[in-house]
Amino acid sequence: MNGIGRIFRVTTFGESHGAALGGVIEGMPAGITIDLNKIQYELDRRRPGQSTIVTARSEKDKVKILSGIFENITTGTPIGFVVENEDQHSNDYNNIKDTFRPSHADYTYQEKYGIRDYRGGGRSSARETISRVVAGAFAKQALEAVGISTFAYTSQVGEITIPIDDYSADDVEKNIVRCPNQDAAESMIKIIEKVKAEGDTIGGTITGIIKGVPAGLGEPVFDKLHASLGAAMLGINAVKGFEYGIGFKCASKRGSEIIDKFYTDDKGGVHTVTNYSGGIQGGISNGEDIYFRVAFKPVATLLQNVDTIDCNGNKIVIHAKGRHDPCVLPRAVPIVEAMSAIVILDNYLINKTTHL
Amino acid sequence: MNGIGRIFRVTTFGESHGAALGGVIEGMPAGITIDLNKIQYELDRRRPGQSTIVTARSEKDKVKILSGIFENITTGTPIGFVVENEDQHSNDYNNIKDTFRPSHADYTYQEKYGIRDYRGGGRSSARETISRVVAGAFAKQALEAVGISTFAYTSQVGEITIPIDDYSADDVEKNIVRCPNQDAAESMIKIIEKVKAEGDTIGGTITGIIKGVPAGLGEPVFDKLHASLGAAMLGINAVKGFEYGIGFKCASKRGSEIIDKFYTDDKGGVHTVTNYSGGIQGGISNGEDIYFRVAFKPVATLLQNVDTIDCNGNKIVIHAKGRHDPCVLPRAVPIVEAMSAIVILDNYLINKTTHL
Amino acid sequence: MNGIGRIFRVTTFGESHGAALGGVIEGMPAGITIDLNKIQYELDRRRPGQSTIVTARSEKDKVKILSGIFENITTGTPIGFVVENEDQHSNDYNNIKDTFRPSHADYTYQEKYGIRDYRGGGRSSARETISRVVAGAFAKQALEAVGISTFAYTSQVGEITIPIDDYSADDVEKNIVRCPNQDAAESMIKIIEKVKAEGDTIGGTITGIIKGVPAGLGEPVFDKLHASLGAAMLGINAVKGFEYGIGFKCASKRGSEIIDKFYTDDKGGVHTVTNYSGGIQGGISNGEDIYFRVAFKPVATLLQNVDTIDCNGNKIVIHAKGRHDPCVLPRAVPIVEAMSAIVILDNYLINKTTHL
Amino acid sequence: MNGIGRIFRVTTFGESHGAALGGVIEGMPAGITIDLNKIQYELDRRRPGQSTIVTARSEKDKVKILSGIFENITTGTPIGFVVENEDQHSNDYNNIKDTFRPSHADYTYQEKYGIRDYRGGGRSSARETISRVVAGAFAKQALEAVGISTFAYTSQVGEITIPIDDYSADDVEKNIVRCPNQDAAESMIKIIEKVKAEGDTIGGTITGIIKGVPAGLGEPVFDKLHASLGAAMLGINAVKGFEYGIGFKCASKRGSEIIDKFYTDDKGGVHTVTNYSGGIQGGISNGEDIYFRVAFKPVATLLQNVDTIDCNGNKIVIHAKGRHDPCVLPRAVPIVEAMSAIVILDNYLINKTTHL
Repeated sequence: MNGIGRIFRVTTFGESHGAALGGVIEGMPAGITIDLNKIQYELDRRRPGQSTIVTARSEKDKVKILSGIFENITTGTPIGFVVENEDQHSNDYNNIKDTFRPSHADYTYQEKYGIRDYRGGGRSSARETISRVVAGAFAKQALEAVGISTFAYTSQVGEITIPIDDYSADDVEKNIVRCPNQDAAESMIKIIEKVKAEGDTIGGTITGIIKGVPAGLGEPVFDKLHASLGAAMLGINAVKGFEYGIGFKCASKRGSEIIDKFYTDDKGGVHTVTNYSGGIQGGISNGEDIYFRVAFKPVATLLQNVDTIDCNGNKIVIHAKGRHDPCVLPRAVPIVEAMSAIVILDNYLINKTTHL
Repeated sequence: MNGIGRIFRVTTFGESHGAALGGVIEGMPAGITIDLNKIQYELDRRRPGQSTIVTARSEKDKVKILSGIFENITTGTPIGFVVENEDQHSNDYNNIKDTFRPSHADYTYQEKYGIRDYRGGGRSSARETISRVVAGAFAKQALEAVGISTFAYTSQVGEITIPIDDYSADDVEKNIVRCPNQDAAESMIKIIEKVKAEGDTIGGTITGIIKGVPAGLGEPVFDKLHASLGAAMLGINAVKGFEYGIGFKCASKRGSEIIDKFYTDDKGGVHTVTNYSGGIQGGISNGEDIYFRVAFKPVATLLQNVDTIDCNGNKIVIHAKGRHDPCVLPRAVPIVEAMSAIVILDNYLINKTTHL
Repeated sequence: MNGIGRIFRVTTFGESHGAALGGVIEGMPAGITIDLNKIQYELDRRRPGQSTIVTARSEKDKVKILSGIFENITTGTPIGFVVENEDQHSNDYNNIKDTFRPSHADYTYQEKYGIRDYRGGGRSSARETISRVVAGAFAKQALEAVGISTFAYTSQVGEITIPIDDYSADDVEKNIVRCPNQDAAESMIKIIEKVKAEGDTIGGTITGIIKGVPAGLGEPVFDKLHASLGAAMLGINAVKGFEYGIGFKCASKRGSEIIDKFYTDDKGGVHTVTNYSGGIQGGISNGEDIYFRVAFKPVATLLQNVDTIDCNGNKIVIHAKGRHDPCVLPRAVPIVEAMSAIVILDNYLINKTTHL
Repeated sequence: MNGIGRIFRVTTFGESHGAALGGVIEGMPAGITIDLNKIQYELDRRRPGQSTIVTARSEKDKVKILSGIFENITTGTPIGFVVENEDQHSNDYNNIKDTFRPSHADYTYQEKYGIRDYRGGGRSSARETISRVVAGAFAKQALEAVGISTFAYTSQVGEITIPIDDYSADDVEKNIVRCPNQDAAESMIKIIEKVKAEGDTIGGTITGIIKGVPAGLGEPVFDKLHASLGAAMLGINAVKGFEYGIGFKCASKRGSEIIDKFYTDDKGGVHTVTNYSGGIQGGISNGEDIYFRVAFKPVATLLQNVDTIDCNGNKIVIHAKGRHDPCVLPRAVPIVEAMSAIVILDNYLINKTTHL
């Protein structure tokens, strides 16, 4: 399928160099006043050409909402939207028509479908995430109405990592790499510029934070809240790993080191002293902050000579032209936020059906 | 929902100390001869009491198949099955009736549902995975018929890790910790015994391997093959992280280091020289081995005094009785295998609809 | 799939002469006290052998609940249940092993799956509806808690029909044909007895009534409330047609004859003077009684010589043995009720997600 | 949800007087050459203003395909499409802003969502079916490639019915009422003109025919082929009933009258002498022609004075302005065809997963 969610469901369409990208948002709760500027704001955060360390392509990426809103209020009916493609240098891609680029999806799409729209990677292009950002921006506005906020930040680029800390959403936008630790941000920007100058690319991680989630969200067996978050993140282009709470570090720990002890606050609220669980226990939110980390591989498109094969299996050398991201992290931050907002809103709504 | 899969779909029911666990398997292809001994064999690999390093509970865990098979052949109709609960020391749990055990799901179930079957953790118990192992054993037999095999092994316990190597399924069963590197296995067993003696528990990782997958499986956007695998693994009790291919290591790499170059073999088959991609590109299998790694936290039940609170928020001290796993890894290996077989079979069947 | 419902979802398994029938109920709201006698009561209404005008088979059809209820209260976790098959005269069916009975599903199952459990029709037997009646009995108890009741009655057998009237659920059980008009009931019983004596069978209709449904249930486009009810009814064995409100009669009417004019009652409640709409407008309940009618064909198994073919296409004559229903209507009444309860509860829960 | 289908899935959006209607088609098989003229042809058959007996509104209803097709061939990726709204006399509807029109969905939408786009009925307008016709036109082209054809015709208007006969798709388009019996068609046209002159409306039935369906399509329990067809038809605006094969007439029949006896043709093919089953037995196609009948109520919008209430419950009189259909049947024929093509293609694809 080309969608995500059971009640709040987002279905997307569109290829990198087709007429338009877009989608349908189902299950948006009725009666919510929508600020369309906030939708466009999120698209602008994802937009190419926004800084010196991302691709210089200059898509405007203006969203048109086609349905589901009446006099700025959601009506409960599906929200259709499109973002028209512009600045399509499709000819840039004629050279890859018969080529399988390494670590791209050219070969696998061809094997699966027997045909592919090779221009800019077609459906496999991260340009598809535009639609997710639009849907996520709607989800964010619904969540805001119930006191839930979601944000993300770049927590690693190459070897540069940042310490765990109580970062705020505001700190994220203070630099172009979207890292809330300003010192690390400078180093990250430098390494990205260096890599870019070498025609190479670099990976990293994004950390996602969700605050204000009430206890009780998540289906406890297969659709554990973290399993849904994980699936959503692993569905983003270039993602190779997902962990939440203590994550992979748990493997070398003992139980006595990482159990989250409970305490009761002044008002009788139940909390945990530590939060190795990442705000989720048994697949269900426990009211603490949810946090998770997502690993992004370096972009596979190198501005170097690269050996590969053509469709007939012959050896060839390619050298990518055009404008490409040396590092996807800065532009992936709003995508991670969007996907987490989509998952949390869906679970928020599903949880309403737990009781009559 | 309480199930996984779109075409090959498994729905489970059952609590740790209820009458029985079981489930329904939908979409099992018709016409496959089933060896029921292989179903029970997988259950036996998951069974408590099978060795000195797992819980001493002695459930027999015998599966009864109730439908969907006629004269040992699948009929295409749903397979209902049950595993009756025995040896239910429910009274062991009276003391936790009013207790929220730390890093368990007691509190979150109570918050979500307003009621919980506290005996043995109820539905949140890993005993639910019995049903997954049954379903996975069916999936394995279908996959076998098309040349796909799936296996898993313990790749880390505490600080002890094993090098990446071309391990075989046969090596896995040679020791009780299910680690194919026999030297490491001995060390792992020792550390588990030590931890057990201290009333503590320990975490680790399991690596999953899937061989023989044809190119083309996986839905390329939201239901990427690795996203489905990730969701399946993150739905297993105690899992905190999932990565495939190079995984989290990609974050510190450059693109030039980890692109998987293509080559053509003697028969014209397309392969990659390296396999950092983990057999999946753009969410679609490319024909190389799929491999992934899953992080399991240490069991939260400690045989020690532990501070916690009761349902009314009062501080109390608990000391778990009964028989518990000091390390879930050995018994989780067949669960990881089962979940991966379920995901791959489902995607195999879905992929048949890509063309008329 | 082998289930129905999005949030309140019922998945069934089981063949007529297999070990057991059963299913899993997902999405049952937590916190509802269940009267297990009411579950069994509904099964008894469906049971063979309950009167002289239904099949004399004597299945006891006792249901075992395996999970999802704790101390008689629903826990929100899935409810697994089984009904073991007894009194299996499987040998009665050896003669149909290689036969395609006319207007049965023998041929189509064979064509679809390449194999079939021929005993008693296997999965195509109406015996499968046991599982629906169990699930419906749970749904009824949830609906009761919110003031919604659902019942059905035999409204036609052969040429005998009853006038539309404000029948009550109590009137239904006063005779063995489950027709609330006692005079018509006597005539219906006589015609069924006559048909039975002739080794023949007869069709009829069942009318379903749902009272107390609040305005607002139903998804307005594809999953209109009546479309979901229709799909549920058309999924019952032997059903050939579904209509709601004025139904097929609308075809010969003018708009001016059948628009349902609104009025406001003393308390400001909005109602319609007439109810040609059947309680549903634009796919959404309007608060009036929902009513619909379902057509059942006569049972295809005749106690007569019948010409047919065997699996190899040769002409043969069959003469059914065993105990069969001359008319399915009396036993189908609880099935229609069950399916309508399942649909309404599912829509009730889904509708809770319309707003934050 | 706002969609239909499991593998071939259509999701729609759009309101009558919003910016555009449209949708996403998922699961369209890859590699099919698409004739876009055929898509537009079906829209033209549905279009207002096409004859004297339908609404005089003059929407052009031109479809734009935004994705999923590359060089006229389907790529297996989702097909996004839009039809922009034109000629929006939105001011015509200001008078109904605060009005609940009888037998429309104004009241139920308001109750469900607390808000509605009242212009032209918003989402409840039959204008939404544009998207279904587009999707159905794609489905038809896929089905054509495997020898399956689907068509429909007006079989009743008011009291005028036509005899059952072997009508062809070609006969349907020979008159503006889309009735293949030319004599009856003339009478139907006259009665519609008469009703229109009186400011009234009239109902009728449409018969659907599907030829060339192989045996084996349909899921045998809940998603019986006729249950899926029924749900699809009942999801069309103004539909009050669905029957297939002998339909409601079965209620007064004996089994001996309507069993469909088998015979074997010269080539060993299995057929039935009669087809009371309507091409479906046990929920699965048997290879005979599928036929069904759908009842449409007369349009609720009358060009007369009509008593009703406003949003505050006060009595008012409305008199519809604008251009409305006196009878929906002629324009509903392509909608019925579209929905049946969608259902059959989905089941065709699902059936491919029955075996490995």
